[in-house]
Amino acid sequence: MKNKGLIFVISAPSGTGKTTVINQFLLNHKKDFVVSVSVTTRQPRKGEIDGKDYYFFTKDKFKEYVKTGKFLEYAPVLDNFYGTLKETVKKSVNAGKNVIMDIDVQGAMKIKFKIRDCVTIFLLPPSFSELARRLKNRRTDTPEAVVKRLALAKKELKERVKYDYIIVNKDLNKATENLEELFESIYKLERFKRNRP
Amino acid sequence: MKNKGLIFVISAPSGTGKTTVINQFLLNHKKDFVVSVSVTTRQPRKGEIDGKDYYFFTKDKFKEYVKTGKFLEYAPVLDNFYGTLKETVKKSVNAGKNVIMDIDVQGAMKIKFKIRDCVTIFLLPPSFSELARRLKNRRTDTPEAVVKRLALAKKELKERVKYDYIIVNKDLNKATENLEELFESIYKLERFKRNRP
Repeated sequence: MKNKGLIFVISAPSGTGKTTVINQFLLNHKKDFVVSVSVTTRQPRKGEIDGKDYYFFTKDKFKEYVKTGKFLEYAPVLDNFYGTLKETVKKSVNAGKNVIMDIDVQGAMKIKFKIRDCVTIFLLPPSFSELARRLKNRRTDTPEAVVKRLALAKKELKERVKYDYIIVNKDLNKATENLEELFESIYKLERFKRNRP
Repeated sequence: MKNKGLIFVISAPSGTGKTTVINQFLLNHKKDFVVSVSVTTRQPRKGEIDGKDYYFFTKDKFKEYVKTGKFLEYAPVLDNFYGTLKETVKKSVNAGKNVIMDIDVQGAMKIKFKIRDCVTIFLLPPSFSELARRLKNRRTDTPEAVVKRLALAKKELKERVKYDYIIVNKDLNKATENLEELFESIYKLERFKRNRP
């Protein structure tokens, strides 16, 4: 029988570079790892593919799935809902794939509560001022939006102590290496946990 | 500042080969690891050195140390007392040495309770019948003593689920390798725990 995959939950304040690190990591680990696809009620943007970028649900369908307990976690964001289906995670884990859940602090704690043996990782910017610099340099947000994002980041950064592990993203390659090392070590230890006859 | 050492507690039923595995491991890791020296009130056997094999205490001195809270754990065994001094562990850990505590199931749980971030490891014989075979082949115990040891082993084996990790000692080299791998993985992970600024 194939071993079950592990569940990794990764959070970071906006601007930390979480998605870039995860994508760089996946380049060499697509065989064993998947990023869980979230459900959203927002409209697909140009180029987004249903089932790959998100599962796009109507609000009615989303509510129906909430009612029947199909979500591992979900939360409203502005006028829409975002969530993760139990089935999405279960299918991958049972197929022996490790699942990476790219998820915010609130969602992460909900998942940790439901799945005690998931591993939570917080990706940390090298400093708050560096995070501010990165967000300002993006030039995609208005100055007001940047201020908002930074206020949220400050709150989120405080939550890092609740996570199992912390990786600092000072340098993309170094952070990706750290993530690899972390996953590898956890994977090795898992073997000694599962040895129980 | 030097990083603090980690604390590893290793238990196993008599006859599992725990001491042999630990000694084999230490051959290549004396720089970073020490086995904590226990205190006993029993008489030193021929060749045993005070401070190396045990700290040999009188019963009065032992009781005094118990009263003043100097023991991390202690327990009576037949007519004598055995225990581990807080100071012994503290000194090594502060010097950056990882401490291996070779200790029975009861003692292990006492230590886990007091030092939450210690790592507990249970060394498992490949099977109960193999353990019985090994104990019988020792020829140092009377058949009655073997029966007693096996009864105790049966009880101890049930406690393995309380440990963080399990290593099966089927083959000495393999078990030593597993121990190395386990320590290394834990050590690597520790770095990501301590990263907290």
